[in-house]
Amino acid sequence: MQSSMAGSEDDNHHLIRSDDRQHPANLIPELCRKFWSLGWVTGTGGGTSIRDDDLVYLAPSGVQKELMKSEDIYVLELSKQVDPKKRVYLRSPPSLKPSQCTPLFIAAFTKRGAGCCIHTHSQWAVLVTLLLENQPANKTLFEINNIEQIKGFGKGYQKQGALGYHDTLRIPVIENTPFEEDLTESLEAAMDMYPDTYAVLVRRHGVYVWGETVHKAKTQAESLDYLFQLAVEMRKLGLPWLSDIA
Amino acid sequence: MQSSMAGSEDDNHHLIRSDDRQHPANLIPELCRKFWSLGWVTGTGGGTSIRDDDLVYLAPSGVQKELMKSEDIYVLELSKQVDPKKRVYLRSPPSLKPSQCTPLFIAAFTKRGAGCCIHTHSQWAVLVTLLLENQPANKTLFEINNIEQIKGFGKGYQKQGALGYHDTLRIPVIENTPFEEDLTESLEAAMDMYPDTYAVLVRRHGVYVWGETVHKAKTQAESLDYLFQLAVEMRKLGLPWLSDIA
Amino acid sequence: MQSSMAGSEDDNHHLIRSDDRQHPANLIPELCRKFWSLGWVTGTGGGTSIRDDDLVYLAPSGVQKELMKSEDIYVLELSKQVDPKKRVYLRSPPSLKPSQCTPLFIAAFTKRGAGCCIHTHSQWAVLVTLLLENQPANKTLFEINNIEQIKGFGKGYQKQGALGYHDTLRIPVIENTPFEEDLTESLEAAMDMYPDTYAVLVRRHGVYVWGETVHKAKTQAESLDYLFQLAVEMRKLGLPWLSDIA
Amino acid sequence: MQSSMAGSEDDNHHLIRSDDRQHPANLIPELCRKFWSLGWVTGTGGGTSIRDDDLVYLAPSGVQKELMKSEDIYVLELSKQVDPKKRVYLRSPPSLKPSQCTPLFIAAFTKRGAGCCIHTHSQWAVLVTLLLENQPANKTLFEINNIEQIKGFGKGYQKQGALGYHDTLRIPVIENTPFEEDLTESLEAAMDMYPDTYAVLVRRHGVYVWGETVHKAKTQAESLDYLFQLAVEMRKLGLPWLSDIA
Repeated sequence: MQSSMAGSEDDNHHLIRSDDRQHPANLIPELCRKFWSLGWVTGTGGGTSIRDDDLVYLAPSGVQKELMKSEDIYVLELSKQVDPKKRVYLRSPPSLKPSQCTPLFIAAFTKRGAGCCIHTHSQWAVLVTLLLENQPANKTLFEINNIEQIKGFGKGYQKQGALGYHDTLRIPVIENTPFEEDLTESLEAAMDMYPDTYAVLVRRHGVYVWGETVHKAKTQAESLDYLFQLAVEMRKLGLPWLSDIA
Repeated sequence: MQSSMAGSEDDNHHLIRSDDRQHPANLIPELCRKFWSLGWVTGTGGGTSIRDDDLVYLAPSGVQKELMKSEDIYVLELSKQVDPKKRVYLRSPPSLKPSQCTPLFIAAFTKRGAGCCIHTHSQWAVLVTLLLENQPANKTLFEINNIEQIKGFGKGYQKQGALGYHDTLRIPVIENTPFEEDLTESLEAAMDMYPDTYAVLVRRHGVYVWGETVHKAKTQAESLDYLFQLAVEMRKLGLPWLSDIA
Repeated sequence: MQSSMAGSEDDNHHLIRSDDRQHPANLIPELCRKFWSLGWVTGTGGGTSIRDDDLVYLAPSGVQKELMKSEDIYVLELSKQVDPKKRVYLRSPPSLKPSQCTPLFIAAFTKRGAGCCIHTHSQWAVLVTLLLENQPANKTLFEINNIEQIKGFGKGYQKQGALGYHDTLRIPVIENTPFEEDLTESLEAAMDMYPDTYAVLVRRHGVYVWGETVHKAKTQAESLDYLFQLAVEMRKLGLPWLSDIA
Repeated sequence: MQSSMAGSEDDNHHLIRSDDRQHPANLIPELCRKFWSLGWVTGTGGGTSIRDDDLVYLAPSGVQKELMKSEDIYVLELSKQVDPKKRVYLRSPPSLKPSQCTPLFIAAFTKRGAGCCIHTHSQWAVLVTLLLENQPANKTLFEINNIEQIKGFGKGYQKQGALGYHDTLRIPVIENTPFEEDLTESLEAAMDMYPDTYAVLVRRHGVYVWGETVHKAKTQAESLDYLFQLAVEMRKLGLPWLSDIA
């Protein structure tokens, strides 16, 4: 049995071992199984991270997300990440690699106080960025209004309450880069320009969605994917994303 | 363990504790898991309520529907709801909020004697309301005929039997409002104008479907979603929703 | 406990009680759960029947197919059905109704020696019949060729082997009738006109598929649904169903 | 009980009996269940093979893939296959037939050192080959670039690392033949012409995808199916598969 080895102090196995289903090391694999069945993390794409106070739990790179186990989770201390080039992990699973999404997740945690950040490769997200790219103006902002599901989003950073039915949901789009960590700067710039957004689309790539809690990040990710799919279907049917309903 | 607390008389825990899978407090979570997998209650959207004689069981607001538990269920007595502004609950789960759909569910129970009412945010329902909005006339009525699945609906309130193949299924559409409870008046007006309907579409929002029993409400909701999806695909293929087949 | 009653000789409960997963009374509910998840038997639509020598097992009318149990199964003796107007059942579950599909299933068993017949309301099947209805000629025959999945069909009644890649699969379409049992005559006529077909489409309704065994009926139903879906997508993309590849 | 017979040395039952979930005879059925739910192996179509050193494990022909068991697996020794016309099996399940895909799987193992090869009938793959067939030039190569999911592929045979975001993924298309084993020659020719490809599309049929390991073959198959689906949706929306982004 490997368990005595695996449970040694060396790899800080205790950080990811818990009988509590709500423990981040148990929640991340459960979420990833769900996301795989939704087509969000196909073929090792996408990822998920949960922050619990100063501890950050991260899905690794390159694993089949529907098969992920608690043992595969990376852990780091947010306050100890002084140099983005030298990431320090409390726990690194042997024979795995940390996710390239790590600096992007950390941006959501440090700049927005997020408790969870979800990255999907949802085709609906990608198609929305392609449709925006193809139109003459305003290529870097997805806008939709007057759809009930918009209420699934909070008003914004450190604000109370949810968006209203007539509010326009605005999700900024950043351009993709060959290396995922190079997205960090433009993701942070998008957060600065749209301080109340809970998501950033990445052109031809997917979307990052976050929230104060796992519950909020996950339900906002679902609501957003719903709106992306609806937007693509609306386009097929010649229906506009914005409308003037008072 | 919280169970002794949770089982105390104070919160009327006995109302939602049963070993019977058919008990409303067990059925609602099971239905919601199914509805989540169908895309009907994405991101905390939608809801479900079951009436058992004078007791009404309600899914709460803002929960992840596929994770709902019996403990999350609200209970009220239908005959005791004298003032819609002052809802009185027999059981209110701590740290949850009652659903904004409550007055709409109650309308189905009181005006139509329904035993179950289901509210979905199905994209097919939303797309049908958008397609209707975009056409010159008759924007407030979805009509389809000569499709076998139409037989999945009862003839109407206090009538025996099901619709026939050649009958036209008519589902009224009401306009959405910023606050869901404000839909009550127009929902009730639609019930009055179309007394035999078992469903009302809400523009850019979703649909309310009911039935005398859980079985009928659920199978009518499925049949309706099937017809909405079919109608959207028919539109993509240039096929009309109404036809003259004798 | 009801089990002693339910197991009495009166209702021939022994006919549907078996520990063998391959027993028709266990297989039909398992198949129906699968078909429900495929969208084939939404809202009590569709049905399935298995013949074991002279005994025919039938799903009842009006049940939620994903919740069906062995106890819900009807049983009749094929050789004893002298008068189609007076169906004689060996076993009739209390408080259920026999399926209106029964005479159609029996036609597959008696005219084609089928061991299993599946009836779906698949939207792809319905859309194919609508697309055919809308075209100038040949409205009553679905034809497709040069698709590998066509090999999923046998060559025909009492013939050895499967269709080839270049063979044209032909599925006749009959017109729907208000009462499902009234389809029997035209279904039998279609069987006579296309003696090698394993399926008949019903306009605006769905499809009947059969096979010598459960395995063949089920895999042919899957292959056919695959081809219907492919045909609809081909139409959306302007691709023809028939092509000249030698 | 058949188990003593089934476990006899005669049929080399020990080759497919293991408590290890990672054993090929356990993995293949698990993968096939997953592939069935993805629509890749509908109606007995498609197949999967895993190579462990010199032993090759193969799903049989004509079975319902979601119901496959370890007992159904064929085993052969790769180094002993001198004559493709006379396949020698270490283990042949009684009353099953070997897959016609066998020579194609073997090509991936011998010519590319693959550890796993997956064959799907995915409709997205078929539609991509139909769309290519219908265009004036370059009918035998699927090309897409500037989509993040392209990183899900290795650079090629005996090369380190993955494709980059700006790289163009190229998948050759071969013409289908009436007998699947007759595809072998053109599949091998496509491998020679595109030595770095991990997949070959078969017109009007599906796709073969492989990888050094089960993990790589499976995640590449998922990434490819994602891209095929995206490509079909892009075509519906008038979006080109290739773009000039620097």
